[in-house]
Amino acid sequence: MGGDAAPDAVVGGAAIARERHPGLRFLLVGDQQAITPILSRHAELKDAVELRHTEVAVKSTDRPSQALRQGRQSSMRLAIDAVARGEANGIVSAGNTGALMAMSRFVLKAMPGIDRPAICSFLPTQRGESAMLDLGANVACDKDNLIQFAIMGAAFVRTVLGLPRPSVGLLNVGEEEMKGNEAVQAAAALLKDTDLPLRFHGFIEGDDIAKGTTDVVVTDGFSGNVALKAMEGTSKLYSQFLRTAFSQSMLSKLGYLLAKPAMNALRQRVDPRHHNGGVFLGLNGISVKSHGGTDAVGYATAIGLAVDMAADNLISRISADMDHFVGHDQQQDQAAAN
Amino acid sequence: MGGDAAPDAVVGGAAIARERHPGLRFLLVGDQQAITPILSRHAELKDAVELRHTEVAVKSTDRPSQALRQGRQSSMRLAIDAVARGEANGIVSAGNTGALMAMSRFVLKAMPGIDRPAICSFLPTQRGESAMLDLGANVACDKDNLIQFAIMGAAFVRTVLGLPRPSVGLLNVGEEEMKGNEAVQAAAALLKDTDLPLRFHGFIEGDDIAKGTTDVVVTDGFSGNVALKAMEGTSKLYSQFLRTAFSQSMLSKLGYLLAKPAMNALRQRVDPRHHNGGVFLGLNGISVKSHGGTDAVGYATAIGLAVDMAADNLISRISADMDHFVGHDQQQDQAAAN
Repeated sequence: MGGDAAPDAVVGGAAIARERHPGLRFLLVGDQQAITPILSRHAELKDAVELRHTEVAVKSTDRPSQALRQGRQSSMRLAIDAVARGEANGIVSAGNTGALMAMSRFVLKAMPGIDRPAICSFLPTQRGESAMLDLGANVACDKDNLIQFAIMGAAFVRTVLGLPRPSVGLLNVGEEEMKGNEAVQAAAALLKDTDLPLRFHGFIEGDDIAKGTTDVVVTDGFSGNVALKAMEGTSKLYSQFLRTAFSQSMLSKLGYLLAKPAMNALRQRVDPRHHNGGVFLGLNGISVKSHGGTDAVGYATAIGLAVDMAADNLISRISADMDHFVGHDQQQDQAAAN
Repeated sequence: MGGDAAPDAVVGGAAIARERHPGLRFLLVGDQQAITPILSRHAELKDAVELRHTEVAVKSTDRPSQALRQGRQSSMRLAIDAVARGEANGIVSAGNTGALMAMSRFVLKAMPGIDRPAICSFLPTQRGESAMLDLGANVACDKDNLIQFAIMGAAFVRTVLGLPRPSVGLLNVGEEEMKGNEAVQAAAALLKDTDLPLRFHGFIEGDDIAKGTTDVVVTDGFSGNVALKAMEGTSKLYSQFLRTAFSQSMLSKLGYLLAKPAMNALRQRVDPRHHNGGVFLGLNGISVKSHGGTDAVGYATAIGLAVDMAADNLISRISADMDHFVGHDQQQDQAAAN
């Protein structure tokens, strides 16, 4: 029931996702009266959907704490409960981000060894796409948080993009070793010596995000959120400038018409619907946040992320990497003590 | 002698700046042998230039500490010394940023009441341009630093853009009061109640930078640097996508030709040369960093900033605002104590 276009976009997204993953089944949680008429227009979903009725829905203006206390019968909470009980392999929601994060964390709990779950998402780059985390779950992070983000982000990219050994960069204000704050310096020192299934690239700078210098970009939730939104703002600025430029004269309007197929291809590459889905990493269950303003196409992208994560068993991958890193770390401590 | 195109770009920039500010005079510090032949091609600068010879130049690879110790006869240091002695109203350099910052701070010293000088620059926005600081001088900032940045940024915008009461936003991960870390929350609480010549807008998010929601964007040097470079990276990504789109087919190439004048106007608006110049605010003297890769046009923009700051006496404006804020703050403490 969350997002600007629910439940239409949700049902439409499910239909698109099922074309891509024919075995896929859905547990739709929400207001039966609102959902049934939409479902009746999607005959192809008939055997793939179970509907669980509730009239309660978390509002976009609810505070996370409020949603936690008062939202026990909300569609969001019932869907997360279904994941916790193993009735569903993951939840996808376009609703209130803070509430989804708080409820997911409360119900699914952080994985052993993960101090702070993080929000991770794909961004378009010159090379294709890169995953960035944390995008806003944790405003202050220490070295351990950053290392855990690196491990989770790399496992996510291995799972979803199928890269066997993704490169990981740590966002900083310069590439030199002495740059930045204590947390990034300590995290870099520890990540340099791991034998995890990732290549630690070292420090990267803000412009490396869009360059695609590394497959994974690790940063604290404050800088990550600011950077993500700053980049979105610049994209919009450019789009506005382009619109203005093309509508300036008859000639430029004609030029636009001729270049339109190419411009559409451009639009396709930066279309946020194809990068939709913020994933909460570090929980004992799959929870994906879709953008609230997206449509069925965008919702299908978010569902696709959940499917990939479930199919490739992302959570046990992260768990194995964490065990490996902790074991390796302890061996080093042991060696240093001897 | 700093930057990729010195001393040509420097002398060329001086010539352009002098067309705009006919009374302007220059003290050029650097290698006479390299500068004289270029000067001889600029007859219009003949009476406006004094040349101070030195063969030493800070290298782009020098560490700031190294430049401080070994660069006492460098062109950069001699130029800053000239500002300290009142022989020049300000220094503009396209050289090593860290060295320029360290030397400027060492020689010119921080203003009374300013704990940490900051780097400030204009960015293009949907509304025109906004000033953002800190862009990387201080990786960790407390509430006092952020308040000082707000005061300095507002004074800078009043001076250079002539806005009597600029709006100031504090960069955060959300607009709600409870969002963010302690520093931004405490700074916001204090800025809300000032009667300084600025309008405190409250928290803004990353996308508000390019929107131009406020005239001044205040943040710590870590997030500021990351956001600035993330935005630069996105601009480049867009330019690359556009080039690809326009060269895709004969039709799109023809479309480009027709739209070219409009595209040039677009390029003009986002041309980094028209926003060139990082200003070190909070020192007892004017110090401007030009981008190392810029040309004469960009260098002239950076010189223009220094001219505006000197002509409108920015430093005493900041000083007066700081006194006013501190006085006001003490009155409040006094009132609270009574």
